[in-house]
Amino acid sequence: MFTPRGFKFAGVHCKIKRKRKDLGIIFSEVPCVAAGVFTTNVVKAAPVIYDMEILKKNPNGIKAVVVNSGVANACTGEQGMINARRMAEKTAEELGVPVESVLVSSTGVIGVQLPMDKVENGIEEAARVLSNDPLPFAEAIMTTDTKVKMHSTKVMIDGKEITVLGIAKGSGMIHPNMATMLSFITTDAKISEEALKKLLKLSVDDSYNMIDVDGDTSTNDMVIVLANGLAGNTTIQPETDGFWKLYEAVHEVNQVLAEKIVEDGEGATKVMEVHVINAPDIKSARLIARSIVSSNLVKTAIYGEDANWGRVIAAAGYSGATFDPEKLDLFFESEAGRIKVAENGQGVSFDEEEAKKILSEKKIRIILDMKQGKETAKAWGCDLTEKYVEINGRYRT
Amino acid sequence: MFTPRGFKFAGVHCKIKRKRKDLGIIFSEVPCVAAGVFTTNVVKAAPVIYDMEILKKNPNGIKAVVVNSGVANACTGEQGMINARRMAEKTAEELGVPVESVLVSSTGVIGVQLPMDKVENGIEEAARVLSNDPLPFAEAIMTTDTKVKMHSTKVMIDGKEITVLGIAKGSGMIHPNMATMLSFITTDAKISEEALKKLLKLSVDDSYNMIDVDGDTSTNDMVIVLANGLAGNTTIQPETDGFWKLYEAVHEVNQVLAEKIVEDGEGATKVMEVHVINAPDIKSARLIARSIVSSNLVKTAIYGEDANWGRVIAAAGYSGATFDPEKLDLFFESEAGRIKVAENGQGVSFDEEEAKKILSEKKIRIILDMKQGKETAKAWGCDLTEKYVEINGRYRT
Repeated sequence: MFTPRGFKFAGVHCKIKRKRKDLGIIFSEVPCVAAGVFTTNVVKAAPVIYDMEILKKNPNGIKAVVVNSGVANACTGEQGMINARRMAEKTAEELGVPVESVLVSSTGVIGVQLPMDKVENGIEEAARVLSNDPLPFAEAIMTTDTKVKMHSTKVMIDGKEITVLGIAKGSGMIHPNMATMLSFITTDAKISEEALKKLLKLSVDDSYNMIDVDGDTSTNDMVIVLANGLAGNTTIQPETDGFWKLYEAVHEVNQVLAEKIVEDGEGATKVMEVHVINAPDIKSARLIARSIVSSNLVKTAIYGEDANWGRVIAAAGYSGATFDPEKLDLFFESEAGRIKVAENGQGVSFDEEEAKKILSEKKIRIILDMKQGKETAKAWGCDLTEKYVEINGRYRT
Repeated sequence: MFTPRGFKFAGVHCKIKRKRKDLGIIFSEVPCVAAGVFTTNVVKAAPVIYDMEILKKNPNGIKAVVVNSGVANACTGEQGMINARRMAEKTAEELGVPVESVLVSSTGVIGVQLPMDKVENGIEEAARVLSNDPLPFAEAIMTTDTKVKMHSTKVMIDGKEITVLGIAKGSGMIHPNMATMLSFITTDAKISEEALKKLLKLSVDDSYNMIDVDGDTSTNDMVIVLANGLAGNTTIQPETDGFWKLYEAVHEVNQVLAEKIVEDGEGATKVMEVHVINAPDIKSARLIARSIVSSNLVKTAIYGEDANWGRVIAAAGYSGATFDPEKLDLFFESEAGRIKVAENGQGVSFDEEEAKKILSEKKIRIILDMKQGKETAKAWGCDLTEKYVEINGRYRT
């Protein structure tokens, strides 16, 4: 894992959870330009409301993010807001930075107040053990995740080597009260506030916003990007060459993390990747890709290894996009091969044995060629299994 | 079951399906004013496209509906349109009525052409056995439904006794390629075309449009109302006294049928009824009720008899409606009692034993009091079970 210059990480166990690490800090030696994308849920957790305010006031002066897992600090009213602010204050005290330079994040059960004594002890300890190793932080933000989710890459811009490192969590298949998706991207690129905002929005629309585990949007979802400028490149402005180079790097990180989130669910046995190609416009392409990947009927068909093309076409049809259904070609693809199952909106005869072989793989691509434009979109999801129902039916608040 | 004056029904087995009845006709002795609401899916089955055209051209002259089950005639291209039209022609020939007075409907597997020889034999036979008994028709439109779905009521308008009879099918839990929702309402009321259209739209918005079985919208869904005027009342005009009286009767029929559709699914063990009350506006009330009833996490919680209020609040939050989450009160209710689980958007302590007892019933009401307006909406759905996944994962195209 590459670590961008000037960032330090920590993850500790402060006993919000019984055994595993539950509190983490990211710290930058110098102030960062920061941008965030937050849950669209009307019911927003206290840290989400807190961070939106901080990023409005101080987008060029962020020095730290403090995150706890185990308790979401959502549906917690006024006391929740006081606790979110206290997390920032305590972190600022321990790190010797201004309060308004600290962002806060939580993930875990809804409707429970944070145990602030434990949280404050955790912050003290984490501030003492900051290091170049991002792994303890990645572990500390996990809830029901079974795997750590990190990805990094490097890119040359303006003769300078720039590093991008992303750390995420999210696992909707298991205890979905804890299904929050969190992602923290750090980079040593130098970039303007406007450019960073634009870049993050563009990338999120084609990564985290295109994954579906169970269709339910958490109260705590957030993606934060911190750029501390230590690579020493000329400040990147919107839609310049440097902008697109950094975009590619950040987007690689976000797409890899989004796929890792989809892959990681005990209930899931398969990953679906839906490609919508030759769509009339980008909005329709995205609507259709998301609709297919979110359909319970498509999810169960993939689980059952059934080349049920009618369900895919129907899901495209109710996506909300307007299009000519009589132009659609549909393919299923995997390591084992590729098969055409529909042409011009109608089924074609295909070898059931071959289809079965293709669908028996772990990663299935569903390719919908709309033949009515040039836009494309990709979405990722997983299958729907008895295990999902079992786990979510049994889970107790 | 009350039957409106002048309507006759038939249902026969013409071997599209192996054993059960698969072709039905509704016939009115005199021309009907007719209105229809059709699937919003962009991918529309041939009979849907055909009927939309007929109702545009001839809304005051409908005399019959012919319906087959077993094959949906969806994703069947030009041949599908030819076959839909041929069903109407054959029915018109056998009944001695104009072709443009016949509506067509299909439900069953997608992507397969109708076996027209069997269908035509079925139409011949059905036309011969028309009677006052609606039961054979109700049986003939079933696919994976385990129960016949009919409801009738009477209302006095203008000194005349008016009868409304509805016959429906729909069962998304089992073989969802056949999950089409069909509903045919017959009445002997005399009503203007404009009034009938308005009345149907109003009622559908608060009945069929508020049920969720698996979130997937069929290519074949349709609701048709036929009014033949034989009750002899003065023609009902929009928003008169008579209009609202007939609305109440039709709406009773539609709500009962909608609930029967939700109840009938082998995979389902419980029915949920979501009441959103004191909402800021009707659109928000409906969005929120539908969002809750469609949430996989709420569905599995109900299945698991878990008073997981956080999932309900979160589903309200991502519904797309804008509201103040800090005003929400939430209750679970059933035959066994009623319990408050959240107040002003936050959890309240409640007796877990009592909650368990309430949620162990077959019919669960979730009541969300928004305390920010006067509008209400109801939605119906069922739980999500391992059985649903098992059935849909195994089902083969």
